[in-house]
Amino acid sequence: MTALEFFRLQTREEVLALYPHFAPVGVEEVDLAAALGRVLAVPLPAPEDVPSFLRATMDGYGVRAADTFGASVGAPQYLEIKGEVPMGAVPERPVGPGETLRVPTGAMLPPHADAVVMLEYTAEHPDGTLEVRRPVAPGENVLKPGEDVRRGEVLFPGGSRLRPQDLGLLAALGVTRLQVFRRPRVAVFSSGDEIVPIAEKPAPGQVRDSNAYLAAAQVADWGGIPTLKGIVPDDFEALKTALAAALEDADLILISGGSSVGARDLTLEAIKALPASEILAHGVAIRPGKPTILAQVGAQALPLLGLPGHPASAAVVMEVLGKPLLARLAGLAGPAPWGGKVTAHLSRNLAGASGREDFVRVRLRTEGGTLWADPVLGPSGLLSPLVKSDGLVMIPLGVEGLLRGEAVRVRLFSSGL
Amino acid sequence: MTALEFFRLQTREEVLALYPHFAPVGVEEVDLAAALGRVLAVPLPAPEDVPSFLRATMDGYGVRAADTFGASVGAPQYLEIKGEVPMGAVPERPVGPGETLRVPTGAMLPPHADAVVMLEYTAEHPDGTLEVRRPVAPGENVLKPGEDVRRGEVLFPGGSRLRPQDLGLLAALGVTRLQVFRRPRVAVFSSGDEIVPIAEKPAPGQVRDSNAYLAAAQVADWGGIPTLKGIVPDDFEALKTALAAALEDADLILISGGSSVGARDLTLEAIKALPASEILAHGVAIRPGKPTILAQVGAQALPLLGLPGHPASAAVVMEVLGKPLLARLAGLAGPAPWGGKVTAHLSRNLAGASGREDFVRVRLRTEGGTLWADPVLGPSGLLSPLVKSDGLVMIPLGVEGLLRGEAVRVRLFSSGL
Repeated sequence: MTALEFFRLQTREEVLALYPHFAPVGVEEVDLAAALGRVLAVPLPAPEDVPSFLRATMDGYGVRAADTFGASVGAPQYLEIKGEVPMGAVPERPVGPGETLRVPTGAMLPPHADAVVMLEYTAEHPDGTLEVRRPVAPGENVLKPGEDVRRGEVLFPGGSRLRPQDLGLLAALGVTRLQVFRRPRVAVFSSGDEIVPIAEKPAPGQVRDSNAYLAAAQVADWGGIPTLKGIVPDDFEALKTALAAALEDADLILISGGSSVGARDLTLEAIKALPASEILAHGVAIRPGKPTILAQVGAQALPLLGLPGHPASAAVVMEVLGKPLLARLAGLAGPAPWGGKVTAHLSRNLAGASGREDFVRVRLRTEGGTLWADPVLGPSGLLSPLVKSDGLVMIPLGVEGLLRGEAVRVRLFSSGL
Repeated sequence: MTALEFFRLQTREEVLALYPHFAPVGVEEVDLAAALGRVLAVPLPAPEDVPSFLRATMDGYGVRAADTFGASVGAPQYLEIKGEVPMGAVPERPVGPGETLRVPTGAMLPPHADAVVMLEYTAEHPDGTLEVRRPVAPGENVLKPGEDVRRGEVLFPGGSRLRPQDLGLLAALGVTRLQVFRRPRVAVFSSGDEIVPIAEKPAPGQVRDSNAYLAAAQVADWGGIPTLKGIVPDDFEALKTALAAALEDADLILISGGSSVGARDLTLEAIKALPASEILAHGVAIRPGKPTILAQVGAQALPLLGLPGHPASAAVVMEVLGKPLLARLAGLAGPAPWGGKVTAHLSRNLAGASGREDFVRVRLRTEGGTLWADPVLGPSGLLSPLVKSDGLVMIPLGVEGLLRGEAVRVRLFSSGL
């Protein structure tokens, strides 16, 4: 690789195209009750039919549908009530022609019954006769075996994140243990001689270690297990030793490098000195976030992401490049397209960054039924604009800018309750 | 309360209007590293300025801006380099007229310097003179003390859920411990003689306990702490005893009642028999979800939500009524409006439910740049339509239906990575 190639900015798409190179983490088995948010490692065919029997979905009477044909208020049909089906039990007898059994919602239909007449269209007479005032079609007010899920059907392909309703259906199927990907372990380093732990009062010229907290919380929010590895001074040997130690027990290494050119160069040199290190990207055509580094390090070819020093830059790089990298490691199938599903209208003109994709923080606001995206501007050294924002809007490469009123996709930072 | 009033369906809005009646859970103190997703219990004014000193945001030279006025490539200004400011340290000397010090990004500016000239607009001469080819304005390429956050400023009002960037800013402010609301503890009961534990093979007529798993996972997804309290048989004393025991250590009780009228009546009687019990709603004008019960029980006036037996109904009631109830208990300020921020176009006509708000499961699909909502229909006894869906669309009360192509708000079930 020549020095010239080395310093060419790579596009976001080029960086994302490197991710399939990294292997997803290993697999573990968990209880269904602990599987919320976990990523299924293998496709899961249904082990049985749900429901497993013909089930009433209304309170009423199990009938042979043919016995009710032509029934009306003026000309009801009459059936003989032969008892009832207790909840959770097998019916004691079948339904013969002209017969019926009471069935509560959720109960099993007796043999030969193929529909349920709802309570409100009937009357019980003192002699044990049922008056039926409406006909039912076969299959009406019942669920057939396998109507919800058929045995062998694959409702859960591998690589999907499990949601509450997924757990509900898996419970119904009797799936109590699941093969899921491990949650990726992420080592989070800060570097910089000016950085002090957050519990300390910084001396003049020093600042607290905010970037590591921000990045670690993003990792946790996205399903990873972050470990704060502390602050490393701007020193080649210290950096190299700290990073090398993390190769042992991390699936991804994040280092929030210094913001000065000198500190960044030092970080780069330390990364290059790691075993089997290869720099895959150094400089990405995004704003903020240009000084990002992506490397592959160690015998297991782990990904290492070097984040810019400015907090807003680091947070944007995490959203734009860190999140899809974590998704890859977590075993999620298919990268989500940038931007998600929220569309809003820009409340002012935005100029783009020539030669780079521009990521603008926005706050969402509803006015007169329209969802507006208000840009929240400010230098990337500030944290408060991020705190005041709900998400990011991208100005694509080669676009001079976006106009007030234009519909834009907004990538939300987080959904919340 | 007369029997007549008792059976009148309440609207969703009427039920939501009862929630301010319930008190949020108590407060606890947590470490910043454990505060992601927690709800701040009190407004948090900034304890200090961020940054705390005049800080360079570019690599370059700290100058008195006035010394650079008029500088150009053709007619540069010349300054005397008096040394440099090390990262994280206090500058050893001020900048006098005609002087400058090297400053890396993030370093403190020396006294009397009020701007940074970027490296690329300068050249160092061997005699220790700096050639400046562009003027800077006062304040250029620096952050002023308090420019990010001013001491006393309230960026975090009480009742907000903490996101990664919030933790980043709190770290910068040195806030290591936080007063947050406890996570609400939610006791989840199933009832029904037909229900068996998920690890068991149901006999014909029996089904596994899927609703409790679904509801518990929703609670966990929304920040509560669910406890699966198991299956209670359709028996008044057993139900009453089980529910009464939960009053001791829960903030909210959920009971997934039987789906038959008889089982629901039994559940209602057991709820009424609890100490200080008051039924606040019995029947809600939503579809699915009509047989919902809201009660206040026990000396602490805890909320109890009785869910319908059909799984899709229970899941919808949890989204529509359970989630805002949990939000109230969790201390979140201001109920989120129904529907969230995603707008899609309906891919087919939908008929409404006369006299009830109708909640229709939809799957989202992007085609030709348009986001479509495909209704996923099916009886509410099924789980698979929920699994195939991304969210819910509401057909409002009094609306006959929605037309194909109409823009509708979609409430997403979950965001995911």
